[in-house]
Amino acid sequence: MADLRSAFLNVYSQLKSELLQDPSFEFTDESRQWVDRMLEYNVPGGKLNRGLSVIDSYRLLKEGKELTQDEIFLASALGWCIEWLQAYFLVLDDIMDNSHTRRGQPCWFRVPKVGLIAVNDGVLLRNHIGRILKNHFRGKPYYVDLLDLFNEVEFQTASGQMIDLITTLEGEKDLSKYSLSKHRRIVQYKTAYYSFYLPVACALVMAGENLDNHIDVKNILVDMGIYFQVQDDYLDCFGNPETIGKIGTDIEDFKCSWLVVKALEICNEEQKKVLFENYGKPDPANVAKVKALYNELNLKGVFEEYESTSYEKLVTSIDAHPSKAVQAVLKSFLAKIYKRQK
Amino acid sequence: MADLRSAFLNVYSQLKSELLQDPSFEFTDESRQWVDRMLEYNVPGGKLNRGLSVIDSYRLLKEGKELTQDEIFLASALGWCIEWLQAYFLVLDDIMDNSHTRRGQPCWFRVPKVGLIAVNDGVLLRNHIGRILKNHFRGKPYYVDLLDLFNEVEFQTASGQMIDLITTLEGEKDLSKYSLSKHRRIVQYKTAYYSFYLPVACALVMAGENLDNHIDVKNILVDMGIYFQVQDDYLDCFGNPETIGKIGTDIEDFKCSWLVVKALEICNEEQKKVLFENYGKPDPANVAKVKALYNELNLKGVFEEYESTSYEKLVTSIDAHPSKAVQAVLKSFLAKIYKRQK
Repeated sequence: MADLRSAFLNVYSQLKSELLQDPSFEFTDESRQWVDRMLEYNVPGGKLNRGLSVIDSYRLLKEGKELTQDEIFLASALGWCIEWLQAYFLVLDDIMDNSHTRRGQPCWFRVPKVGLIAVNDGVLLRNHIGRILKNHFRGKPYYVDLLDLFNEVEFQTASGQMIDLITTLEGEKDLSKYSLSKHRRIVQYKTAYYSFYLPVACALVMAGENLDNHIDVKNILVDMGIYFQVQDDYLDCFGNPETIGKIGTDIEDFKCSWLVVKALEICNEEQKKVLFENYGKPDPANVAKVKALYNELNLKGVFEEYESTSYEKLVTSIDAHPSKAVQAVLKSFLAKIYKRQK
Repeated sequence: MADLRSAFLNVYSQLKSELLQDPSFEFTDESRQWVDRMLEYNVPGGKLNRGLSVIDSYRLLKEGKELTQDEIFLASALGWCIEWLQAYFLVLDDIMDNSHTRRGQPCWFRVPKVGLIAVNDGVLLRNHIGRILKNHFRGKPYYVDLLDLFNEVEFQTASGQMIDLITTLEGEKDLSKYSLSKHRRIVQYKTAYYSFYLPVACALVMAGENLDNHIDVKNILVDMGIYFQVQDDYLDCFGNPETIGKIGTDIEDFKCSWLVVKALEICNEEQKKVLFENYGKPDPANVAKVKALYNELNLKGVFEEYESTSYEKLVTSIDAHPSKAVQAVLKSFLAKIYKRQK
C-alpha cells in the first residue's frame, strides 16, 4: 500500500517536471519557480483517494491480469488529473468561502505575495489537465472521450458550486429555502460526479469502454457520492473531532447540510422557530441550541436509518449489474465508505 | 455590416438558450436566471472584433465562394467561443486587478450579491465553451483539434497572465525588473494568442486545415498581436481619451507598458532616477513628471519608428506566404489595426 502510494507520487514528479518544461510557453525563471511552488503546495498534499482509485478500479476491471508498467503509468496520470482538478476547485473555493486553512496549512491565497494571483493559479491548475492529457493520451483512440469527460464533469461541478453559492445567499435570508431536493442537487453536482463517478469513468475509458453504455454505473456512483456527503454532513456535527481531524462548523457557517434540511422536514412549528433563531450564528450558545434540537429530533437515529437503507439499495443495484468486474469496482468503493467514522 | 452583427448576435441567443437547457445539469429556476443574467452582463457587450473575425477569415479562406447557412452558423459559434473565452478572462482579471468598471458598467464582481461568486461564474464561462463545442462540433473530423486549440490557447493566456502578475509584484519593488523581453513575453502570451491567432486558427480548422502546417501564420499573427498591444500601451498615454473611450492609467498602475520599458532602455542615469521616483504613483504630479520624461525621450517618435518598421516586416512576411487566400486573411487583420487611433 505504501509502495503503491510512492509509485503514484513518482508519477506526480514526472508530470510536474513535464509541465515545468512545457514547450507551449516560454517560462521565465521566476514563473517556473512560481508554478513549481504552487503545485507542491496544492496538488500532492491530500489523501489522494480519488487519484489512487483510478488505478484500483482499472486493476479490478482487468480482473486480476497483471498490469503493464505503461498501464500503471497511464492510470496514475489519469488519477493525477483528478487530483489536479480537485486542487483547482479547492484553491478557488477557499477564495470564495474566505477560508483560512486547508489540509492543515493556510489556504493558498493567504500565503504572502499570493493573494488573488491564486485565481489565476486555479486556472493554471485546470489547464494542466489538458496538458497532461495531451502529453500522454493524444494518440489514443479514447483521447477525445477523456477530454469530453473532464469537460462535462468540470461543468457539473461548477454548476453544483453555483447552486450551493446561490442557495446559501437565499438561505441566509430565509432558512426555509433549504430543502432536501436542493441539498441532493448541490451534493450530486458539486461532489458526487468528480469524486465518485470520474475515477471509475477514467478507468472504464482506459479499458476501452464506451461511457454511454454505463449510465447505470454512473447512477450508482452518484448515489454513493450523495450517501458519502450525507455522512460528511453527519460527521461534521456528530463525529469525533479527533477522528475526523477538524472541528465542524456547518451550523455556524449556515451550511445547507443534510442535518438542517432533515430537521426542517420533521420539526414542528415551535422547533422550527428555534432553528430559525439559532442557525448560522457564530455564538457557541446558538450552536448548542441547534445541537440540542438535533438530539431532540433524534437525527442520529434518522441518519442511521438513512445509512442502512442507502446501503441496502446500493448493494441491490450493484448486484443487478451484469459484469462481475464492474460489481467488484463498485463494491470496493462502497466498502471504503460504509459506516466510516472519518 | 450591421446585418452581419445582428446575425452574429442571433447565434448568441441560440447558444445561450441551449446552455440554459443543458441536459447535463438540473437547473433550479434561480440558477437558470443567474446564468442568464451573468451571460447577458458579460458576454455580448464588447466590440465583438475577435468573434466576428472568425467569420471574416473563414469567408476569405473560401475565396469568395458563397457560404452556406450552416457554415455561417458554425463559424459564428466558434466566434462566440472566443467571446466567451474573453468574458471568462475579463471577469477573473477584474477580480485580480481589483478593477472598477468594464465596458462602461461596474465589473461583474462589483454587482450587488455577486461578489466572489464571480470566480465561479468565470469558471462556468470557460466551461460553456466545451458545451458549445460539444453541441455543435462533436461529429466533425476536426472536433478534437478544436478542443486542443482552445486548451492550448487558454493555457498560454493564463501563463501570460501569470508572468504579468509576477512581474508587477517584482517591478513594484524594483522598476528595473521591467524589460523589453519580459514585455514581449507577457504580451505574446497574455494577448496575442487568443486575440489574433485563435480567430484565424478556428477558421483554418473549420476549413479542414491542419494547424501544424501553419506555424508561419501563427508567427505572423503573434507578431501582429504584439504590435497591437504596443499600440495599446502607446494610446493609453498619448491617445485622445475621447477617441479611445477611457482615460489611461498605466503609469499610475505600475504597468509593465512598452513605454516604460522603452524609456528604461534609452534613458540616462538622471532620467532613470526620475522614472524610479515617479512611476506607479497615484498623484497627478508624479504622473505628469513621467509624461514629461516620455516627451523628453521623444517616445512618440520612437513609437512611430517602431510602427513603420513593424508594418514593413509584417507586410514582407505576409507577401512571402504561398497562399493568396491566407495572405488576404492576414492583410485584412493588418489593415484593421495599422495606424489605429483607438
